Amino acid sequence: MILVICLNPALDITYYVPAVDWSGVNRPTAVHARPGGKGLNVARTLRALQADVLVMGLAGGITGTGVAAALGELGVPGAFTAIGGETRRTFTVVDGRGGGAALFSEAGPAVDEDEFGEFRVQYEKALAGCAAVVLSGSLPPGLPADSYATLIATAAAAGVPAVLDAHGAALLRGAAAGPAIVKPNLAELEALAGRSLSTAGGADRRAVAAAAGQLRAAGAQAVVASLGAEGLLAVTEDGRWQARPAGPVAGNATGAGDAVTAGLAHGLVLGRPWGERLRHAVALGTAAAAAPAAGEFGPADYARGLDQATVRREGEL
Amino acid sequence: MILVICLNPALDITYYVPAVDWSGVNRPTAVHARPGGKGLNVARTLRALQADVLVMGLAGGITGTGVAAALGELGVPGAFTAIGGETRRTFTVVDGRGGGAALFSEAGPAVDEDEFGEFRVQYEKALAGCAAVVLSGSLPPGLPADSYATLIATAAAAGVPAVLDAHGAALLRGAAAGPAIVKPNLAELEALAGRSLSTAGGADRRAVAAAAGQLRAAGAQAVVASLGAEGLLAVTEDGRWQARPAGPVAGNATGAGDAVTAGLAHGLVLGRPWGERLRHAVALGTAAAAAPAAGEFGPADYARGLDQATVRREGEL
Repeated sequence: MILVICLNPALDITYYVPAVDWSGVNRPTAVHARPGGKGLNVARTLRALQADVLVMGLAGGITGTGVAAALGELGVPGAFTAIGGETRRTFTVVDGRGGGAALFSEAGPAVDEDEFGEFRVQYEKALAGCAAVVLSGSLPPGLPADSYATLIATAAAAGVPAVLDAHGAALLRGAAAGPAIVKPNLAELEALAGRSLSTAGGADRRAVAAAAGQLRAAGAQAVVASLGAEGLLAVTEDGRWQARPAGPVAGNATGAGDAVTAGLAHGLVLGRPWGERLRHAVALGTAAAAAPAAGEFGPADYARGLDQATVRREGEL
Repeated sequence: MILVICLNPALDITYYVPAVDWSGVNRPTAVHARPGGKGLNVARTLRALQADVLVMGLAGGITGTGVAAALGELGVPGAFTAIGGETRRTFTVVDGRGGGAALFSEAGPAVDEDEFGEFRVQYEKALAGCAAVVLSGSLPPGLPADSYATLIATAAAAGVPAVLDAHGAALLRGAAAGPAIVKPNLAELEALAGRSLSTAGGADRRAVAAAAGQLRAAGAQAVVASLGAEGLLAVTEDGRWQARPAGPVAGNATGAGDAVTAGLAHGLVLGRPWGERLRHAVALGTAAAAAPAAGEFGPADYARGLDQATVRREGEL
């Protein structure tokens, strides 16, 4: 089983409005409410890959009940620790005229030490039957930056490898706890490096590799940087790799990154070598970018992506 | 007790964003979620006036549970009939730069005949102890336009006077059932009249009075038209009246109209003569317009409004 940790889940609400009046009253012609948060997207992708998954996290209030219920309706098992605060919402308005969108993202409820302590008790029990744990997304307000590091150390003590997708201090502290894989995107690596890692033509691959190498030196066993349409750059125990999608990729960037994380965790559990692991991850990312909602992908897009991706080992570290 | 009927309640969610990026990602600095829908605003205003109130309506799904819970937290008793659909939300995004706002309003869940039948059974029981019933807001999809008329007729059979705030066919059919008071606003009267009732200087009072007179001829015992900053124009069994606020009124127009309805129902139950009834209604409307959220008003604003409003009987019909 793959355990997916989502400490700050969300109810993602999307409105489609044919022509938005940004200073008036609008009646959406379509309304979608889906469980969200990066961890839930990862879990849904893993579920679609037929992997055995359990989502654990923190949920509270009416919105928390709604997230748990909606996740169950999607066929993804979840076990949430109840908190006093109200689980957050995100609200996206898609303007039918140009397809542009405005996204509004609540920070989420503050979590206290007792609530996180209760979660850790449940987490430690669940680790017993796990092949891997994925820790993904922002930490809710109130939790210290080393929260992921603590959970990774607990997993390591239970012999369970961890995949981490986080940002800022949570990423840096988490990497130091020795996870099997961390998956930053370009913006997250740039924030850690404190400088741009891009050139006019796209990501500066040498600079990205150097920043990924630093995260590896900090403790992560492997670092896979997701570079949007430019694919993946991985720094692993088996050398440096590049994985590129066949053609141009556009669409849902959040969903794409989460699908990459799911692909990496799936490959880890299946014992795939790095080349295959990255091929599946980049194909899932491409397929997810083309899907209408995060956490979803078209099987045909995935199959085509596997066929057309270019994966290359670039040499020793 | 005043029974307030809210067939299409809502969870009103408001985001404050210091400077909205209408094509990007925004993090609201304040989030409010309140029970909404016109009937709930009326009930909260009546509760603040110390009136004994019960809200009845239809609610479903996670959002329906949330609306009922939030209403209870505000100290307003509610008894909702469960429906299969999911109660609607509204989103308001307030832009900190200019105070402008974009409002997004879901239509609400479709209600079927059986669900409305179950509601009517509960409604008829509740009428037994009532001094008045207020029917306010849109009908949910699926209910026929004569739904308010049916409820008003049931109330009349139980000897309970009704106050109706609706629009379109629901207003017209409802008026024919003989409610004590209907409270259209200018736009609603114009929609019924099929023509503008305004001049360059504001409402055309003679035309408004004529349109209100037609609604009265259709069956309503009294018609009180709310004209925004220009106050109220009433056509009643005690002649024609005008009530004007002291100074300019700006702010929350929805909340203001609902506060006027609450004031009219309260005056009806207290047996206030029309002059006093309108004075209270216009003062409540002014105070509510100045409040940050619908359903609320400042007592000092209300007291000042009572002091400063001009109420005049303009003669026989």
